[in-house]
Amino acid sequence: MKKSLAALILFAGLNASAQTPAHEKLVQYVKPIIGTQRMGHTYPGATVPFGMVQLSPETDTPSYELNGKYNPDVYKYCAGYQYDDKTIVGFSHTHFSGTGHSDLGDFLIMPTVGALKLNPGTADKPGSGYRSAFSHANEVSEANYYKVKLDESNITAEMTTSARVGFHQYTFPKSDQSHIILDLMAGIYNYPDKTVWTYVKILNDSTLVGYRQTNGWARTRTLYFAMAFNKKFTQYGFKKYEKRQVYGGFWGKFNQSKNFPEIAGKQIRAYFDFKTEADEKIKIKFALSPVSMDGAMANMQAEVPGWDFDKVKTDGQALWETALEKITVSGSVAKKQDFYTAMYHTMINPTMYMDVDGQYKGIDQNIHKADGFTNYTTFSLWDTYRALHPLFNIIEPQRNADMVKSMLLHYDQSPEHMLPVWSNSGNENWCMSGYHSVSVLADAVVKGNAPFDANKALDAAVATARHRNYEGIGEYIDKGYIPDEKTGVSVSNTLEYAYDDWAIAQMAKKLDKMDIYNEFIKRSENYKNVYDPAVGFMRPKLANGTFRAKFDPLSTINEGFIEGNSWNYTLFAPQDPEGLIKLMGGDKRFVRYLDSLFTMELPDKYFAETEDITRDGIIGNYVHGNEPSHHVAYLYNWTDKPWKTQERIRMILNRMYKPTPDGLGGNDDTGQMSAWYIFSTLGFYPVAPASNDYAIGSPAINGAVIQVGGGKIFTINVKNQSEKNVYIQKMVLNGKPLTGLSITHQDIMAGGEITFFMGSKHK
Amino acid sequence: MKKSLAALILFAGLNASAQTPAHEKLVQYVKPIIGTQRMGHTYPGATVPFGMVQLSPETDTPSYELNGKYNPDVYKYCAGYQYDDKTIVGFSHTHFSGTGHSDLGDFLIMPTVGALKLNPGTADKPGSGYRSAFSHANEVSEANYYKVKLDESNITAEMTTSARVGFHQYTFPKSDQSHIILDLMAGIYNYPDKTVWTYVKILNDSTLVGYRQTNGWARTRTLYFAMAFNKKFTQYGFKKYEKRQVYGGFWGKFNQSKNFPEIAGKQIRAYFDFKTEADEKIKIKFALSPVSMDGAMANMQAEVPGWDFDKVKTDGQALWETALEKITVSGSVAKKQDFYTAMYHTMINPTMYMDVDGQYKGIDQNIHKADGFTNYTTFSLWDTYRALHPLFNIIEPQRNADMVKSMLLHYDQSPEHMLPVWSNSGNENWCMSGYHSVSVLADAVVKGNAPFDANKALDAAVATARHRNYEGIGEYIDKGYIPDEKTGVSVSNTLEYAYDDWAIAQMAKKLDKMDIYNEFIKRSENYKNVYDPAVGFMRPKLANGTFRAKFDPLSTINEGFIEGNSWNYTLFAPQDPEGLIKLMGGDKRFVRYLDSLFTMELPDKYFAETEDITRDGIIGNYVHGNEPSHHVAYLYNWTDKPWKTQERIRMILNRMYKPTPDGLGGNDDTGQMSAWYIFSTLGFYPVAPASNDYAIGSPAINGAVIQVGGGKIFTINVKNQSEKNVYIQKMVLNGKPLTGLSITHQDIMAGGEITFFMGSKHK
Repeated sequence: MKKSLAALILFAGLNASAQTPAHEKLVQYVKPIIGTQRMGHTYPGATVPFGMVQLSPETDTPSYELNGKYNPDVYKYCAGYQYDDKTIVGFSHTHFSGTGHSDLGDFLIMPTVGALKLNPGTADKPGSGYRSAFSHANEVSEANYYKVKLDESNITAEMTTSARVGFHQYTFPKSDQSHIILDLMAGIYNYPDKTVWTYVKILNDSTLVGYRQTNGWARTRTLYFAMAFNKKFTQYGFKKYEKRQVYGGFWGKFNQSKNFPEIAGKQIRAYFDFKTEADEKIKIKFALSPVSMDGAMANMQAEVPGWDFDKVKTDGQALWETALEKITVSGSVAKKQDFYTAMYHTMINPTMYMDVDGQYKGIDQNIHKADGFTNYTTFSLWDTYRALHPLFNIIEPQRNADMVKSMLLHYDQSPEHMLPVWSNSGNENWCMSGYHSVSVLADAVVKGNAPFDANKALDAAVATARHRNYEGIGEYIDKGYIPDEKTGVSVSNTLEYAYDDWAIAQMAKKLDKMDIYNEFIKRSENYKNVYDPAVGFMRPKLANGTFRAKFDPLSTINEGFIEGNSWNYTLFAPQDPEGLIKLMGGDKRFVRYLDSLFTMELPDKYFAETEDITRDGIIGNYVHGNEPSHHVAYLYNWTDKPWKTQERIRMILNRMYKPTPDGLGGNDDTGQMSAWYIFSTLGFYPVAPASNDYAIGSPAINGAVIQVGGGKIFTINVKNQSEKNVYIQKMVLNGKPLTGLSITHQDIMAGGEITFFMGSKHK
Repeated sequence: MKKSLAALILFAGLNASAQTPAHEKLVQYVKPIIGTQRMGHTYPGATVPFGMVQLSPETDTPSYELNGKYNPDVYKYCAGYQYDDKTIVGFSHTHFSGTGHSDLGDFLIMPTVGALKLNPGTADKPGSGYRSAFSHANEVSEANYYKVKLDESNITAEMTTSARVGFHQYTFPKSDQSHIILDLMAGIYNYPDKTVWTYVKILNDSTLVGYRQTNGWARTRTLYFAMAFNKKFTQYGFKKYEKRQVYGGFWGKFNQSKNFPEIAGKQIRAYFDFKTEADEKIKIKFALSPVSMDGAMANMQAEVPGWDFDKVKTDGQALWETALEKITVSGSVAKKQDFYTAMYHTMINPTMYMDVDGQYKGIDQNIHKADGFTNYTTFSLWDTYRALHPLFNIIEPQRNADMVKSMLLHYDQSPEHMLPVWSNSGNENWCMSGYHSVSVLADAVVKGNAPFDANKALDAAVATARHRNYEGIGEYIDKGYIPDEKTGVSVSNTLEYAYDDWAIAQMAKKLDKMDIYNEFIKRSENYKNVYDPAVGFMRPKLANGTFRAKFDPLSTINEGFIEGNSWNYTLFAPQDPEGLIKLMGGDKRFVRYLDSLFTMELPDKYFAETEDITRDGIIGNYVHGNEPSHHVAYLYNWTDKPWKTQERIRMILNRMYKPTPDGLGGNDDTGQMSAWYIFSTLGFYPVAPASNDYAIGSPAINGAVIQVGGGKIFTINVKNQSEKNVYIQKMVLNGKPLTGLSITHQDIMAGGEITFFMGSKHK
């Protein structure tokens, strides 16, 4: 094992601040293509860290409906791109990374030559529309850069971004009929009425502005744009695809479909025509704003005043380099590709959500201004409270604090007076269970990363957790569990609420609000109320206090759970592993339970019930592709067999993450799967966020250096690590033996050094 | 004849400023019900002068479509109310006054008791929905006050307004099931997709905000509201009527249809429940904003902070009193009712269009701020350039100047870089022909009422008139007329452009821009190019310079004209009556032509082609109910038979205007019909706006005093006037005989006195 280069530099007495490490460029290891095949739901396009624009190709965007019914194919295209597809429809400016439900895909642009075709056509006949065949051989996907050759037109498409501006560069062949198509109907998780309204205003022969209002997963969302070409178009026009037209009485005065500067309607595709020489580049700057067309134009002018494509690309990649350098690891190229792509995927969502002047649209549908902080959106909190936000508290503490501020403003502006559940672009879609934003707040407060009003955060958490008419909270408060009669997900909700309540209690304790601590620490024990000792599982309970007769611990749907069966969810008391083990009959029975989980054969009929993941996302009956069991492999630490944690973690790392397009075993879930990877690779994991403790796992690299802020570093040395040497023989922290199975947040943030001594046999 | 009371007071030496006249209240003569029967298209509800809120009952709002086709019934309901109807659907907050196409009808409110019915039901079965029968016996309609008893519920509804706030007061019976329904789907000229989006946010147990976005005559329009009750509702909810629902995945967490504070969708009706005691009043303040929900709330707080219904009513009526006092007339009660209702109808549209802080949404769909002036919308310029804006230049010069400023900002913000044609709420619907905004600008500049950038006004007018791709302007410039091949309205457009060009020339002359003067004075003669001396009519001309063979001077549709046949439009050269008379063969033939127009029998088949008016709106073949002939009766002044003008004017006044619900012979057209009435009743008329001259007609009152600003008055004495004594025997202006047939704008605005001596025989 060799020390990481950065660590060596440090040892040589050099300054260790984030700016100085003279090591190799880490951005080279980012492979955005990882996860684009099958269920990863990532995208290969260009974005900067936490950028508002995610400019990426769509290989398909099937309709949400097919013959009046839900179209299951739509699910594959949550990020608009599937690696196995042979055609590209176009390039749009907004994408979620790794989600299991979706939206966005705004403002699809496609360059074409020849006769104008305003319909995309079909994948089996790319020439039938503006869609084009492409080949991965002609495709380049880097952090903040995407390039592909479009076979139909022989156009080379390149794209890069700044935070709020997508920059396209299309190299055309010689043609008198070169077109740029702007499809305002296209979208991800689209259905016929999703586009509520579209407006476009042509300002001059090379500039336009407009907006698109959608009713999607974000129910009421308007996104504004400004679009500038580096070359004057010779003419322009549009076609409407809606059945019903606006009152037509007096519109005959103009030919509105051609060279008319004001376009509006529900289903619109516009085009801009050019004559191009061979290899002529048409460049497009496409700025977004959640506030106004003026805002979009101001964003463009502030971020990309000129036309230097390479500068925008380079500037954005420099941002990535700085972000990636927060952790330097040593290991194989494949390991670094896995690691830095995981780092990359943790820094896409949440996304910045405000104009350069700080204005944004709140969930109250009013315009607000973020003063002195960055406002964020895209909070997939059921996923990300687990490891993503804890990771931010180490490597991006300022951003995490700003995310908390954004969540507190959401609370202020929320008509329901609740913290976000799954929020996007000033909308709440209530996706998934629990009120896990409280965990994010508590984790930041408990760990001392709280440059916000912590008492207000506590108030918001308490108000949210006392919201009696939110999914069974009233019954939960009254009975200590949610009755099965109330909801089909009564058990998982009860368990998640109990954890969240514990997080609130920890925050209250930190803030010395002991009445609140007492209320919520009591609530946090509610997990015990749905455990049926007769069967040894968490089990749906009726309002009368008896357990429901019908019960299958392998089944999820209608069995009281969501995205996890009772076998997995029974282990969901991360706040109290000791209590859980006691409840379940002590160490021996608990280890046997865990072993069974990882090794049992899951009958096919149950696999169909595990949502969002491929068969690869499951080990035995352990479902890594969904989140509820992300802490489970670490639970052996609380038994007399902690080495089994080390073994399982390495197995999961090996089986669930590969540096290939199909390298993710399930949805990346806006970075939670990647955050699990980063922590577990480094050798520790936040089993219970809102605690200062990280559970020790098994480091899977040869060493790492974490920039923990203020010029301090935390060095991880891993001696004798290999695919076989997965067992910890001993640990030394800052020169002293580490005998427990955890390290604290303070251990890390103070800077220092931990050394793992690995071996092939467990101790 | 006796002098008007105000004039007598003046003669007694009292100060004559606008504030002081101690005469009877003029507001008593305002009968908003005039014109609500048949084709007047006025409404009986409450508004203040030029107010942003027009709160009025809807008796019906039929769908624009019936079985997939245009529903001709929709036309009757341009203002939402037809006097002959027996039921009221509810009370909405926005209405055009007197238009022939329509929109608006936003935010319909209806109080009910008993079982909740969220559908309006049908007129023949009012109990089948929330609709109620009513009787005119239980109806009061005053300026800024409307009251009606709803027979179904026994609720007395009263309403009044401030500029931006509608104030409802509903006196309920005792009931445990009292409801206020807020129908967000209802609207005028409605069709199934017109409501693009609706959003409602409940702030507390008595306050809500929201908005409604529509795709109507105003293509892209969002109107925001804030609604406050004086009593807490016990519960609330809504129902969605759209077929397709939003993604439903995670919404089961709440019962969203009841007591859930965030409502959004396309087709929504909401309700608010109360328990009421006998005669308990539920009051509602309903504020509008074109900018935001915050803006609506600020408007409410600024204009109506308290709950004093009577104060709001009294304050608004005081505004009307001040506005009406600009002209005091003496005459019968019926005459005063006609006159002051006409005054009232001239001061509804255009309407104020900005928040209390000056913000408004421009036609560029951006938010702007009006600094130092009032921004207006609802410009029906094809109608109003003729007499309404000239009237404002006398009695409301400041408002007219602000309207010009609003039009110039429209020009600045217009994607087409054109002055408004028919604009409403930051939208252009291009209704009707010509570019008559230039006449409004020129009239203000020529008359010296130009506290705006007059050179900029000229630039805007010229740019608009040179807009080659606007409805034949290119051909008009090249050939001197619009070829019949280009458009079905080639002749009327050619004639109107020629007049507008003359107006531009006058403005240019006033501003000493002689090159522009020369260009446009030449263009103004283009009217001659479509006159066919062989038939003695203006006639469609082909691109090759020959007249079209097929021609029927009595027909309008597809004959080269709009809202007027060739018989009427042949007289449309108000800028050059002498030239026209010469063109048509001299005095004798011209008088015979005019006489024929007024006396001929129009065969039934042609009547069907005269749009927007009842049979009563026609005298012979003279169509008063449409505007193109509004100057025609005055044209005798340019012949040797000027007494025929006097006779015709009195005939038109008598036949076209009555103080009854059916008292208007055609659409009031946002006040143009009423402005014609006011001028003609006073004895003069602006035949060619942008000229300083008014043609003398025949005064139809016994005297009048006009407040012309700066404390000055212009007094009109009419001696010996009666229904028979319609002929002017002599005129004296400021003590000197007036021998011509015109007075100037300066004569009026300088203050002074004119005396008409009337007799039963023409001189």
